[in-house]
Amino acid sequence: MAVYTEISDEALEGFLAAYDIGAVLALKGIAEGVENSNYFLLTDKGRFILTLYEKRVAEGDLPFFLGLLDHLAARGVTCPSPVHGRDGQIVRRLADRPAALQTFLDGVSPKRPNVNHCAEAGATSARLHEACRGFTLQRANALSLAGWRSLVASTSAGADGVQTGLRQAIADEIAFLEAHWPRDLPAGVIHADMFPDNTLFVGEKLTGVIDFYFACNDMLAYDVAVNLNCWCFESDGSFNITKGRAFLSRYQAVRPLSEPERAALPVLARGAALRFLLTRLHDWINHDPSALVRPKDPLQCLSWLRFHQQVVHAGDYGL
Amino acid sequence: MAVYTEISDEALEGFLAAYDIGAVLALKGIAEGVENSNYFLLTDKGRFILTLYEKRVAEGDLPFFLGLLDHLAARGVTCPSPVHGRDGQIVRRLADRPAALQTFLDGVSPKRPNVNHCAEAGATSARLHEACRGFTLQRANALSLAGWRSLVASTSAGADGVQTGLRQAIADEIAFLEAHWPRDLPAGVIHADMFPDNTLFVGEKLTGVIDFYFACNDMLAYDVAVNLNCWCFESDGSFNITKGRAFLSRYQAVRPLSEPERAALPVLARGAALRFLLTRLHDWINHDPSALVRPKDPLQCLSWLRFHQQVVHAGDYGL
Repeated sequence: MAVYTEISDEALEGFLAAYDIGAVLALKGIAEGVENSNYFLLTDKGRFILTLYEKRVAEGDLPFFLGLLDHLAARGVTCPSPVHGRDGQIVRRLADRPAALQTFLDGVSPKRPNVNHCAEAGATSARLHEACRGFTLQRANALSLAGWRSLVASTSAGADGVQTGLRQAIADEIAFLEAHWPRDLPAGVIHADMFPDNTLFVGEKLTGVIDFYFACNDMLAYDVAVNLNCWCFESDGSFNITKGRAFLSRYQAVRPLSEPERAALPVLARGAALRFLLTRLHDWINHDPSALVRPKDPLQCLSWLRFHQQVVHAGDYGL
Repeated sequence: MAVYTEISDEALEGFLAAYDIGAVLALKGIAEGVENSNYFLLTDKGRFILTLYEKRVAEGDLPFFLGLLDHLAARGVTCPSPVHGRDGQIVRRLADRPAALQTFLDGVSPKRPNVNHCAEAGATSARLHEACRGFTLQRANALSLAGWRSLVASTSAGADGVQTGLRQAIADEIAFLEAHWPRDLPAGVIHADMFPDNTLFVGEKLTGVIDFYFACNDMLAYDVAVNLNCWCFESDGSFNITKGRAFLSRYQAVRPLSEPERAALPVLARGAALRFLLTRLHDWINHDPSALVRPKDPLQCLSWLRFHQQVVHAGDYGL
């Protein structure tokens, strides 16, 4: 659940005067995105999402995030399209924060994705990777191997309070990943956080990918590994190979994985599971009970990691 | 800000199957109403609000609240219209709670109402009072004179912690009101909580009154007094007589106040200020910092009360 910044009538009016989007009919704070304040905006010309960027998104990253959406939307990827003001600008200030307008996408996030949802996600992820070619801005992945050590340090004191042995399990895993992390795989811009709740569907058709605020430059196969974690595990921690096969076959129909990428998939999947384990653990340990955001269970990611540690080759994912 | 109950895909599908409102295009939890979980629902046939009634609304009161909206909407009052299922029912269960669908109303709640907003509110309040005639269900006002004593008891220990002398000021005021509270004024169904954030405007035209969950049977002039408190004070605590005049003249153009109602207005306004002072004080003292709802400042109501205590006759409100 998001934070909501109050917007005065005058500030809203001043902000919207910079756009040619018609007269305001409704504005509702919506419970979407934990990083920012989001509002559903209805005008007599259409539906929009108004986002106020709170402190967790670095203002300097906005040209990357919003430029990427502009780039992708122009290439037919189903993602929000930033609305340009009359001056051509996408980002301006509102209520003392950076703010931007985007087109509203129809769709509902699947709470429990089925096989067809996974297949759609695979196709869309591959199209996204292809469409990112030619986007010239760069953003390093702060939450890849190099960034995990500091998360390990900040969570190690509290890890065993969440589950006995967790501290050692994380130490062992990061040592393994540092020794085996692949290099020289095809790289580009990745979403890096395409969980089901960052996608929208009408029925079983994917109508939108949202929340690109972790997008960055990294190995494309790492994004595939993230998505295997996000999409193909059941809530009991078991891996559903039918979902894995659906995701990967539709992905490969658009962008086939190379042999080195396939070989690296189990290690990449371990890394992706550890990345979400570490960030969730950090949020869990440092959770302020008065905050509006409820932390997600880090142990779910531990069960993903345990599965990947047993994987022998990429065929175990349905490849 | 509202609580959000999670709705599973299957539960939503089962619920909506009872209605003839088309296929779901979007569902967003919205930050509206502090008592319930509210969702913006978009289908290929229109826009709706889906409400899940949380524990603060008594299920037994729903036929009154929703029946009243049905009654008012049929008489052209700009309020949400409950959507009937194919079985004719308005209330059914979703996620283990009573739930109902209502039409979505365009409009934005004015953060700082101007004189024209106040005029519209006056006309709408009077139309609402007139249109309530013939509605046969009854609901007592639990938050009128008889209900205040228990709020005084539950807040007296904490009152002076909010402001020194507040406990005595409340005790004096309730003694005065018990001695002077009017009787035998014209009565009917009143909204009882028509604050600007429970109204919607497109520009300066009132397009909706929402949140009828304090509606009840009481003196119509008491609702006028509530509205003088809600609409006509500035944020510095001063009464804006131009706004008072605008509200009252447009109210009276629809339903003229009788002489006994005019005479009672200052006492009723004191009662209305005390009612909101007491409930806000109760919420302030008993506030759980981990709750999602932020309490409103009770001292704002004390400044309203101080004004009314100085009022000599209804002319001071712009009558």
